[in-house]
Amino acid sequence: MDKSFDVVIIGGSAAGLSTANSVLNWYPGKKVALIRDVPYTVVPCGIPYIYGILGSVAQNKIPDEGFIKKGMQIIEKKVIHVDRKNKTVIFQDESKVSYDKLVLALGSRPNIPSMEAITFANVFPIKKDPVFLEDLNQALEKSRNVVIVGGGFIGVEMAEQVRLKEDRHVTLVESLPHCLMLSCEEEAGILVEKELEAMGINVKTNTTVEALVGKDRVEEVVLSTGERLKADVVIFGVGCSPNTELAERIGLDADRTWGIHVDEYMRTSAEDIFACGDCCTKISAIYGEPVAVRLASVAALEGMIAGSNLYRLTRKNRGVVGSFATKVGTISVGSAGYTEKACRDQRINYYKGEMTAPDRHPGSLPGCTPQTKVKLLFDASTDQIIGGHIIGGIQVADMVNILALAIQQGITADALATVQYATHPLLTGSPLVYQVMWAAENALVS
Amino acid sequence: MDKSFDVVIIGGSAAGLSTANSVLNWYPGKKVALIRDVPYTVVPCGIPYIYGILGSVAQNKIPDEGFIKKGMQIIEKKVIHVDRKNKTVIFQDESKVSYDKLVLALGSRPNIPSMEAITFANVFPIKKDPVFLEDLNQALEKSRNVVIVGGGFIGVEMAEQVRLKEDRHVTLVESLPHCLMLSCEEEAGILVEKELEAMGINVKTNTTVEALVGKDRVEEVVLSTGERLKADVVIFGVGCSPNTELAERIGLDADRTWGIHVDEYMRTSAEDIFACGDCCTKISAIYGEPVAVRLASVAALEGMIAGSNLYRLTRKNRGVVGSFATKVGTISVGSAGYTEKACRDQRINYYKGEMTAPDRHPGSLPGCTPQTKVKLLFDASTDQIIGGHIIGGIQVADMVNILALAIQQGITADALATVQYATHPLLTGSPLVYQVMWAAENALVS
Repeated sequence: MDKSFDVVIIGGSAAGLSTANSVLNWYPGKKVALIRDVPYTVVPCGIPYIYGILGSVAQNKIPDEGFIKKGMQIIEKKVIHVDRKNKTVIFQDESKVSYDKLVLALGSRPNIPSMEAITFANVFPIKKDPVFLEDLNQALEKSRNVVIVGGGFIGVEMAEQVRLKEDRHVTLVESLPHCLMLSCEEEAGILVEKELEAMGINVKTNTTVEALVGKDRVEEVVLSTGERLKADVVIFGVGCSPNTELAERIGLDADRTWGIHVDEYMRTSAEDIFACGDCCTKISAIYGEPVAVRLASVAALEGMIAGSNLYRLTRKNRGVVGSFATKVGTISVGSAGYTEKACRDQRINYYKGEMTAPDRHPGSLPGCTPQTKVKLLFDASTDQIIGGHIIGGIQVADMVNILALAIQQGITADALATVQYATHPLLTGSPLVYQVMWAAENALVS
Repeated sequence: MDKSFDVVIIGGSAAGLSTANSVLNWYPGKKVALIRDVPYTVVPCGIPYIYGILGSVAQNKIPDEGFIKKGMQIIEKKVIHVDRKNKTVIFQDESKVSYDKLVLALGSRPNIPSMEAITFANVFPIKKDPVFLEDLNQALEKSRNVVIVGGGFIGVEMAEQVRLKEDRHVTLVESLPHCLMLSCEEEAGILVEKELEAMGINVKTNTTVEALVGKDRVEEVVLSTGERLKADVVIFGVGCSPNTELAERIGLDADRTWGIHVDEYMRTSAEDIFACGDCCTKISAIYGEPVAVRLASVAALEGMIAGSNLYRLTRKNRGVVGSFATKVGTISVGSAGYTEKACRDQRINYYKGEMTAPDRHPGSLPGCTPQTKVKLLFDASTDQIIGGHIIGGIQVADMVNILALAIQQGITADALATVQYATHPLLTGSPLVYQVMWAAENALVS
């Protein structure tokens, strides 16, 4: 192992890998080390699919080869300290490496409710550690009754995948009135619940877990409704919090809710130390308020920005939009920016436009999702788009990305309505109904 | 039939229908008539699919119901004249209707090469007339040898569809070095040719038709290579020209290459007469030069603009981007703005970035197109995106629309590289490789 690097990155998930890639793109020849305490990096958003269509953790690997070929060195060790004065990273085995620039890509940790039996071996708060994920895989293999707590993206996707084994009873418990409500419109959550129920999953919304019951293992989950569910495995997907531990220990500005403080260049409060991804603070690209959006796509972007800024301030982070998409059963849903609920909660004066139409033309063509719907929200004082929500087929994520770009560009309803777009019978809705642009037009004329 | 209307639209395809929709949105209560000389409107881009997966012309209909419900009246008659002084439209049967505002949505006419036998009954230059299209359907039903001339979108799609009947010999003849070269990158054309050849279609590029041979019907097509092809049906898809006939007759400014002159509000040279769609002039949204892009999506947008401007100048047409997509065999290709060839031809100083990666993550997930590729072109003096080209799977059109929006917004490579985007294992490539943004990044660092 080399002892001295130009750039040391702590953390090997999306933010860390993206930083490494970016440094090697922008500053070829720099000596770059990426430190992780796991044998390999998993695709973070692919985790639910390990337990269904992928079948194993190894199938859900981000390959290192491309990064290594570019010149990145991987150090598989646990960091215990950073000596800022001597610019060295100290490992648990007492070895050290020195850096010129340090990047913290420490990620997040799953939120773990404080309740009895939460540490029992058959309770799994989702972590990105392959060993942990393989343990869960083995526990699930033997399970007949699975309770998943949290109806956000992870919970919903886990429920769908775990249920692919037909003799397994799966219950999804969500405290809010509907699934996915923190990022999607209520109607999308309702549709997703219907898809899950059609698969035989027991969906309990407006419900919380009161207790986990069992001796060495959890055997029953007690709900706020009084119902008791048998459980061989209990999975928690109830959000995550920034991993600020190391940063706090070495005296960087950080707080546990929002993360390690970074500026628009991804610099922390300490010279030559940057941070990116789930571990650091984020602001909304729309109104600039702090936000808790922790996504691999945001992490990858922040890594790109951090990496390019290490030796020259190249570009600014313009903030987070919050762009999501998922596929559950026969539908896909996606979202960028604010929901109607968020607008109401934050007293944003908005207006909206909707368009529902088939996503092929004519609608009899193969692959058609007849009720493909786009809803757009515009700020009433600026006419700029602040939110977009899509229910449809396999193209939903790319359609969301049209909206994500529009939101970041501050495009008005009129400009979005009169954007030129490609259509094709086998690939999109008709030009007379292409949902993104006609939803904008409908916002203007309704 | 009513005799007096607020708005009369001549032409019932994408531009006309979109205008009607827009007028009724923006000026509810206006009395709107749409005149067409065909019994119903076909989905223009759906025409090739009539001869394959759709099976009949009737399956490729744009339904009138929605428009009629909104208040549009349909008049199925042939217009022979417009009396501008008395603001009336005169039909072949000598009846008339009066208008306050007139919109010409006259479309285009297929280019027909001047050669002997071109008017024979088994030679078909593609028109949007359902009777004509049904004739072609019947001719194809009985055919064993089909020659398609022109390897643009229509020719390529027709070849694929006509060949679905396996005992039919299909030859596609293209004069340029590759198919789709007027709108796509050469590499996309080459891949499409491979797909066609894999289906058993005989693709002849760099080849022209020298003669059509036969007595009452064409029996053989003679190529520039000397080869003679048997033909029961010959289809021409060699471009189209704006239909300016009526406009010229009534004294509007127009020319036969570029169309009826319109300004940015879609107004013709005559008061109270607007035009939109294939029949009228267009300028590039990028550099403002005249362009000959005739697409249903452009027509629909222009109809929207014309309709909203009829009684109040509401919005400007910002010009044409040229956004295309198609699916041939197992791949989809799409494009927005300039190709590399067009840049070279027009001496535009550009630089480019490319990204090729799977469009699912991990790539083993279902629906993955492993070699999904995005190529982006940027103006070297402004850093703004001027072209984008995609080869991939079913999401290509929506990915093209991200680029179309970016081109219209004049987004720079840096801004596009740092845009936030949604990713999902089942729906897109990994955030570490999402092709649109990483192609922009690669343009900056390569």
